[in-house]
Amino acid sequence: MLVVLDLLGTFVFAMSGGFEAVRHRLDWLGVAVLAVLTGVGGGLVRDVLLGDLPPASLRDERYLVACLLGAAVAVAAAPRLARGWNRVMLADAAGLGLFAALGAAKGLAHGLGPLGVILAGSLTAVGGGVIRDVLVGKLPAVLHKDFYATAAILGCGVLLALHRLGATPAIQLVAAAATTSILRLVAMERRAQLPRAGLRDGGPSAD
Amino acid sequence: MLVVLDLLGTFVFAMSGGFEAVRHRLDWLGVAVLAVLTGVGGGLVRDVLLGDLPPASLRDERYLVACLLGAAVAVAAAPRLARGWNRVMLADAAGLGLFAALGAAKGLAHGLGPLGVILAGSLTAVGGGVIRDVLVGKLPAVLHKDFYATAAILGCGVLLALHRLGATPAIQLVAAAATTSILRLVAMERRAQLPRAGLRDGGPSAD
Amino acid sequence: MLVVLDLLGTFVFAMSGGFEAVRHRLDWLGVAVLAVLTGVGGGLVRDVLLGDLPPASLRDERYLVACLLGAAVAVAAAPRLARGWNRVMLADAAGLGLFAALGAAKGLAHGLGPLGVILAGSLTAVGGGVIRDVLVGKLPAVLHKDFYATAAILGCGVLLALHRLGATPAIQLVAAAATTSILRLVAMERRAQLPRAGLRDGGPSAD
Repeated sequence: MLVVLDLLGTFVFAMSGGFEAVRHRLDWLGVAVLAVLTGVGGGLVRDVLLGDLPPASLRDERYLVACLLGAAVAVAAAPRLARGWNRVMLADAAGLGLFAALGAAKGLAHGLGPLGVILAGSLTAVGGGVIRDVLVGKLPAVLHKDFYATAAILGCGVLLALHRLGATPAIQLVAAAATTSILRLVAMERRAQLPRAGLRDGGPSAD
Repeated sequence: MLVVLDLLGTFVFAMSGGFEAVRHRLDWLGVAVLAVLTGVGGGLVRDVLLGDLPPASLRDERYLVACLLGAAVAVAAAPRLARGWNRVMLADAAGLGLFAALGAAKGLAHGLGPLGVILAGSLTAVGGGVIRDVLVGKLPAVLHKDFYATAAILGCGVLLALHRLGATPAIQLVAAAATTSILRLVAMERRAQLPRAGLRDGGPSAD
Repeated sequence: MLVVLDLLGTFVFAMSGGFEAVRHRLDWLGVAVLAVLTGVGGGLVRDVLLGDLPPASLRDERYLVACLLGAAVAVAAAPRLARGWNRVMLADAAGLGLFAALGAAKGLAHGLGPLGVILAGSLTAVGGGVIRDVLVGKLPAVLHKDFYATAAILGCGVLLALHRLGATPAIQLVAAAATTSILRLVAMERRAQLPRAGLRDGGPSAD
């Protein structure tokens, strides 16, 4: 059950990576590469940091298959995806919540402290997108816009709190994933953004 | 014998990284850094993902020596390299085939499935170049041009097929490396490119 | 004692990452992310390559706390940091020396050869800054300006030499850190730069 959800999340993330590649007019291979790295990148980084190697996504071929399916859909249905982008973002929010919860649970299982658990969960959730953005030369979205990683962080916090309170792992996962996904959807609805750290006049400017 | 070829491949890749640094007018250290990361970067990523740590290129000092030699040649002979770029690309194609075959064989030895083996082989072959391009702020060549990673992928496929058919490891390696290198050379000759995934009018454009 | 210094270095590096985020007008989360990656990024890369996983900075929560403190200071005191940048750079030079020495010592303890030790030490010292620059889309400073990584490399060389001569670990560390920090400060004072590798007329230009 968990694995099926994980594969679905991978598929959705891979589709978003593949779509970004289509927008940048990359060739088929570029689409496949971006789809794979966006789909499994976050989990790869998490597994490397936890020393759980080879990573799950290399041991179980279904993850790479899910990525290639995502890439194929991105190529075949790009105009349709562009028109129905809101629904893609809905699926993306679900994937975000799931990845954050699974990543945090894995960090907890490896004995990390609270901040480490939050880092493991958020990296799993947003790592693939950061890799995608760096490869196509964009400032990673997570650094400057949207209430995206923040939703993942808060979801991980919910998982930690429920873990401390003695809730069962299933309840921890569901509550954490739901918190993240719902926060993300509400933020999309309201176009919420975090306050921006700024330098008023007299400060240095980015060169 | 294999190690000697591996070192030669590392030297060629390091030289290409160092040459890129010279073109960007980096200082000597920048040349050395780009040479090292291009030369051993693909293998580093592969070894990290396979959990084979510290990576071969850190355990055996000859790899880093080969990188520094590549950097020195790039600095000393940059104009000559620029004029004889075709011959450099010839050596690069040989390195590509070798790295793809060695990476795929290592993935196979670690029990990965077919897609994992192909990923391990291609990452070994193109990972260093991707790191080089990201560091100097270019869209990684592998994402958008040339029949480069594709040649590596097809070579890995040949290795897998021969493995299934029960060929000896030596035959697997030679056939895979030759397939990749020859495909790459033919593609250079014909300026072959993969079809580009595109959005016709009405689609979104990359912002 | 060592850990306290390590935490101080992490704090200073995180502050510089957070400050860079403020200059790029990122939101609070972006500031925190850049601060964390700049603060612990070099050590993460080193620990991944040495196979010492999970990395020290994920096992000991104080590292992430130091990063978040650095981020908070960067947000709260950005204009003041901008005016007193020289003092920030002074602290940064101290962090650089410390990180280089600790990284080299760890590489030595893991049985790396001389070049591997130098690579481990320099990566620890400059890795966080490279990650920071790549994420905000800048050519990593270490590739093209200042006598920065070079100071780290020379410090690692001192550690190696003293190790060969049979000096105690404490002396190795202190001498290596001092060498790096002092070289860095002298270079700042004199605006020293490494010679640039160049192509005179007739050479290719970066596209």
